[in-house]
Amino acid sequence: MRFLTAGESHGQKLVGIIEGLPSGMKISKESVDEALRQRQRGPGRGGRMAIEQDEVQLISGVRGGLSTGAPVALEILNRDWENWASIMAWGDEADLESRKVMTPRPGHADLTGALKYRTEVRNILERASARETAMRVAIGSIVRQGLSALGVEIRGHVRAVGGVHAEYKDEADYWRRVKQSEWSVGDPVAEQKMGERLLAAREQGESLGGLLEVQVLKVPAGLGSHVQWDRKLDGKLAQAVLSVQAMKGVSFGLGFEAGERMGSLVHDPIHYHQGQGFRRGSNHAGGIEGGMSNGEPIVLQAVMKPIPTLYQPLDTVHLETKEVVKASVERSDVCAVPAALVVLEHVVAWVIAEAVLEKFPADSFKELQTAWEAYQAYLIL
Amino acid sequence: MRFLTAGESHGQKLVGIIEGLPSGMKISKESVDEALRQRQRGPGRGGRMAIEQDEVQLISGVRGGLSTGAPVALEILNRDWENWASIMAWGDEADLESRKVMTPRPGHADLTGALKYRTEVRNILERASARETAMRVAIGSIVRQGLSALGVEIRGHVRAVGGVHAEYKDEADYWRRVKQSEWSVGDPVAEQKMGERLLAAREQGESLGGLLEVQVLKVPAGLGSHVQWDRKLDGKLAQAVLSVQAMKGVSFGLGFEAGERMGSLVHDPIHYHQGQGFRRGSNHAGGIEGGMSNGEPIVLQAVMKPIPTLYQPLDTVHLETKEVVKASVERSDVCAVPAALVVLEHVVAWVIAEAVLEKFPADSFKELQTAWEAYQAYLIL
Amino acid sequence: MRFLTAGESHGQKLVGIIEGLPSGMKISKESVDEALRQRQRGPGRGGRMAIEQDEVQLISGVRGGLSTGAPVALEILNRDWENWASIMAWGDEADLESRKVMTPRPGHADLTGALKYRTEVRNILERASARETAMRVAIGSIVRQGLSALGVEIRGHVRAVGGVHAEYKDEADYWRRVKQSEWSVGDPVAEQKMGERLLAAREQGESLGGLLEVQVLKVPAGLGSHVQWDRKLDGKLAQAVLSVQAMKGVSFGLGFEAGERMGSLVHDPIHYHQGQGFRRGSNHAGGIEGGMSNGEPIVLQAVMKPIPTLYQPLDTVHLETKEVVKASVERSDVCAVPAALVVLEHVVAWVIAEAVLEKFPADSFKELQTAWEAYQAYLIL
Amino acid sequence: MRFLTAGESHGQKLVGIIEGLPSGMKISKESVDEALRQRQRGPGRGGRMAIEQDEVQLISGVRGGLSTGAPVALEILNRDWENWASIMAWGDEADLESRKVMTPRPGHADLTGALKYRTEVRNILERASARETAMRVAIGSIVRQGLSALGVEIRGHVRAVGGVHAEYKDEADYWRRVKQSEWSVGDPVAEQKMGERLLAAREQGESLGGLLEVQVLKVPAGLGSHVQWDRKLDGKLAQAVLSVQAMKGVSFGLGFEAGERMGSLVHDPIHYHQGQGFRRGSNHAGGIEGGMSNGEPIVLQAVMKPIPTLYQPLDTVHLETKEVVKASVERSDVCAVPAALVVLEHVVAWVIAEAVLEKFPADSFKELQTAWEAYQAYLIL
Repeated sequence: MRFLTAGESHGQKLVGIIEGLPSGMKISKESVDEALRQRQRGPGRGGRMAIEQDEVQLISGVRGGLSTGAPVALEILNRDWENWASIMAWGDEADLESRKVMTPRPGHADLTGALKYRTEVRNILERASARETAMRVAIGSIVRQGLSALGVEIRGHVRAVGGVHAEYKDEADYWRRVKQSEWSVGDPVAEQKMGERLLAAREQGESLGGLLEVQVLKVPAGLGSHVQWDRKLDGKLAQAVLSVQAMKGVSFGLGFEAGERMGSLVHDPIHYHQGQGFRRGSNHAGGIEGGMSNGEPIVLQAVMKPIPTLYQPLDTVHLETKEVVKASVERSDVCAVPAALVVLEHVVAWVIAEAVLEKFPADSFKELQTAWEAYQAYLIL
Repeated sequence: MRFLTAGESHGQKLVGIIEGLPSGMKISKESVDEALRQRQRGPGRGGRMAIEQDEVQLISGVRGGLSTGAPVALEILNRDWENWASIMAWGDEADLESRKVMTPRPGHADLTGALKYRTEVRNILERASARETAMRVAIGSIVRQGLSALGVEIRGHVRAVGGVHAEYKDEADYWRRVKQSEWSVGDPVAEQKMGERLLAAREQGESLGGLLEVQVLKVPAGLGSHVQWDRKLDGKLAQAVLSVQAMKGVSFGLGFEAGERMGSLVHDPIHYHQGQGFRRGSNHAGGIEGGMSNGEPIVLQAVMKPIPTLYQPLDTVHLETKEVVKASVERSDVCAVPAALVVLEHVVAWVIAEAVLEKFPADSFKELQTAWEAYQAYLIL
Repeated sequence: MRFLTAGESHGQKLVGIIEGLPSGMKISKESVDEALRQRQRGPGRGGRMAIEQDEVQLISGVRGGLSTGAPVALEILNRDWENWASIMAWGDEADLESRKVMTPRPGHADLTGALKYRTEVRNILERASARETAMRVAIGSIVRQGLSALGVEIRGHVRAVGGVHAEYKDEADYWRRVKQSEWSVGDPVAEQKMGERLLAAREQGESLGGLLEVQVLKVPAGLGSHVQWDRKLDGKLAQAVLSVQAMKGVSFGLGFEAGERMGSLVHDPIHYHQGQGFRRGSNHAGGIEGGMSNGEPIVLQAVMKPIPTLYQPLDTVHLETKEVVKASVERSDVCAVPAALVVLEHVVAWVIAEAVLEKFPADSFKELQTAWEAYQAYLIL
Repeated sequence: MRFLTAGESHGQKLVGIIEGLPSGMKISKESVDEALRQRQRGPGRGGRMAIEQDEVQLISGVRGGLSTGAPVALEILNRDWENWASIMAWGDEADLESRKVMTPRPGHADLTGALKYRTEVRNILERASARETAMRVAIGSIVRQGLSALGVEIRGHVRAVGGVHAEYKDEADYWRRVKQSEWSVGDPVAEQKMGERLLAAREQGESLGGLLEVQVLKVPAGLGSHVQWDRKLDGKLAQAVLSVQAMKGVSFGLGFEAGERMGSLVHDPIHYHQGQGFRRGSNHAGGIEGGMSNGEPIVLQAVMKPIPTLYQPLDTVHLETKEVVKASVERSDVCAVPAALVVLEHVVAWVIAEAVLEKFPADSFKELQTAWEAYQAYLIL
């Protein structure tokens, strides 16, 4: 299974193609649209979110509510496009001057992209923009529906924003609050402080990052492999996480705390329960040992840097005059941590789905389910 | 460029093949052997290190000291093999009983691997062992020699062991001490404490992990790409780091600290210096923006969990009887952080070399150098 | 560089994404549309060709007439779609009954696809249809424009249709006639006979295949590589050719005649001409030795079987009743050899372009041109 | 599943690594050695065959006669190596002069390889040599053993040598004779003529090519896929065939004859037999429709050009002086068609095995067998 995405932030639309999906899998456009809505919410968003109201179009590979096995093409229109049509036009008539960018923004792909591709900064930022993650959410949502039908559950919460940390308790109550929270935070005290921190940041022309956590529940032991470096599941998850705009780090289970402790306080003892198979007494490993899922929840944390577009912009250099100037300002959010959480959940869904399809036969979803259930039964013998 | 490795911990040898190396690149066996020696040193190593004395054999693809463009096959003999020959034999005569493992070790691939591959634990741990990283160091060392000829420098140091943190100063003196330190630590006070921590751990049948940092200097802006998720350089580096045994997290530049700060304290202002091109006033990004190297040093940190084999083993379950027992003990180290640093440096070298060849495809090293120099000249215009 | 295509024969549109195109490459929509028109012509086409009038939409990755380095998304609308909208609908409201296919056509993917994907034949034939090659022509046309700017020329002609063989002469006159011929044939006598053969076939409810030849001129020596099996240029070209619907064989240069002759009558002596470098006295190898282009024109031939949809259909089996019945008839052509030639030229263009980008540095087209010209100069030293 | 090979014709050894083999698969060294012996036989071979007596070494990934799931490393020693050790040495002490090649042989990779890799011809021909196919046979033999355990049978015969064509009858008797024939030919009259043709060629310093056929029996419908161009089984087989040294063309079923006939004489009517499922009345398609196996035997033909090294060498150019000279002569065969047949069978085995694992991903052979048998049962319902 593989996918490609295309499309610019102010282009006509985002386009994606998924190749290798099993046939006969139920696909709901509503579920994709709901994921897209989730990605647009959050208290720190700029004006664009109101404009977007993203909606997916299923162009191919789905018929009568079921995948056909053929490639699935997806589109998401950019509703602001008509205002940009002449600027972004593919032909000679394009207006290349009006929105030319000569003052690359620190923290973005602007400068390096322009140097690498020897092109104007506008051409870089249009593609480097996190707008592209809308399509990755749509694609992730498609495969997540399949995972969900197998019983795999993916969930996430925001652990910190701009230095304000939530107190996490792995309880039903906490997770219920996460769902209701516009911050995706289950700790109401922290949530309120985050709101205050956001207001302050907005006032100062600043931006905020944070700490995010994604969990994958009910994954069987044995996804990924230890036999070759590039087949390790944690490696693939790490790549996917770091491929999301603004992510600067990822860790599993105890994460960086694992380096501080003695071994006996890190590793998870193995138990056995009749009818459940092998389980662990703790989950410090975050569900991955030897590059494979070990049957416990996969738990990963990621850090997101503050959005680099600042309304009080940093110093940069004018590309022609080489004078010191302030960086350009594209419309931007102050804090996109809850939105990024939705993106993370969906890129994680992709990696898990890919690992599932590497392990189980599945031209059709029916075969996948049969193989999946047989394996689950084997595991609890 | 791609590679595969093969070989078991107690098999006859490790084997590697590198495909896609340019021709005409100087390759020194001594440099590879030196890297292998570096990997074997460190104060926390078990008895095996004395046995190994690793040495590479260059089987193909190199002639008269230069690569030919043909695949480079490498071998590293396992000197302990003769004691294991009958146990590891490929044929029917193999002694499958003597070293059978029925008590999987927490923290290793043992249990999951055995479930996934439906085979005895011995077959899993032999391949999952960090012994395999010797070949990855050898392979990394080959491409690192090419990077070095282009002026790219890779270096690393240990930032913490078992909770003892070194105080890092980016000074020549510090780096000189790192080179002389068996801990790869530039802070002598911390180094002494690490030794004490190690002694205590060994006494208690415990093991230690730590925090490692790798830096890549003199990389031009523009390796990797923002245009598609799987081409981002930080994503690829993250995958490579997490693919090293015992790594549980990776971060770039400020790392997890980036989520705590306001945006203006995170992003690196852009400057311009005649004759040097664009530079940054700080390097909080760790040399990567938009999935591309930005011309500043690439700086990444990784956390290593303590080695899971404990001489005071954790609880596990006997695979047949399902009784609670102590985990088996394979010969092991108490702390392998300095060795892991060498591995990290070399897997990073691979990713950088791959990114270089993606940007400057090259049948011969001469063409690579020409393209490289032309690009460097372009960057400082 | 890579691409994916999506879309069904009667779906809303075909979609394609090209990833890895250099920036700064001139892209003309007109050239793509002209290639699409070429694909639709020919004397043996059914009614659909009139309906289609294919036209590409450039959705992303091109601005102001130049590629930006970002993925290029392409669309081709299916003009007949409105008549099929309810049949092909992605949602539960789809009319799955009206155009259900229970009588799989021999020679198509119908039966095997339905068995493999456990789905209705309609879902298979919609994707397996040669309609999909319209997108491959569009994609090939994009990269062919780049090749053309480098001086590489691709051309093709039809060598035989339904047993009528043209007498080929490699002369300007012949090629001029090929361009004017609706059969893409340079031999007017053969062309007339082909027309007669077509009429007869149409009358009998039959279909015709033929023999096609594609040539790539002004390719330098050294594309592809001998060092690993999957890097050989002839292997890649062969895969691309066989991936086109209805192709059953491919050969290079002398082709199957090479097995009949003594060695001295097969291999091409090496000459040297001041200012031209190494050339061959003949081109029996079809421009490829050792899996690499050798500097002579690449010449390949492909055989196309007759279109399997017959208006006098063959026997098949009703999928439910298992009764012997006549195969279903989808609207179809009697002979599509000239159209297939256009497809072949464009899939060949892709493989050549890919090989060029594997050999030369090219984030931007300017770098590609510089490297290309330096290499050409080196070759004639 | 993937593999890499390495090694030069006169180097110390050939090396191969197979990655992704299921565990628990029976692997017999004897079977590999027998395949290697088959590759060395044939009446047209030069002196080297006596020297080689190839034998595989199983270095890793196999224990107690079963695959472990870990990568399988293989070696084949070059018995002639000791005579070449100083010439092929990797270090500075290598004797680069004694066997320097300045007169590239037409028909080989010699000239193009030297231009591309900017290296001496010796470095090219050592890797481009068909010696490398010994490792591909060994690798193919490993996966062929797994296919065989699933009931898949691969067989081949020589259809023509140097213009002498065998009269093929698909009868048990014919195939019995093929096995006994040193020419792999089942027609004794043709076989005798081939011997005479060989004698004549040898006397004249000439070489011979021929026509080869490989068949794959008992492959279920549904390997490969129609949904994306690069997943078509015929395309992959074509690439594999053309990747074998000296192959200049490949065709399936009727092959080039398919272009000559009317459609009704080309396509294979679909039948249904209780207990057997869907079958075809003929097999003109060679077992592949829509890029997928259709359940009938896969039948492909390949043409092999005469070996390009001629004892009466062709004209070439001295690389330094640019004078017209005779091409150099490396020890060579007069005709290697029967040997090439063995290579073809094994590269075909690889592609089929890969397609099987894409359809039935499998960590263990037992899972593969279960999925395979369930699918077979489904197909005959």
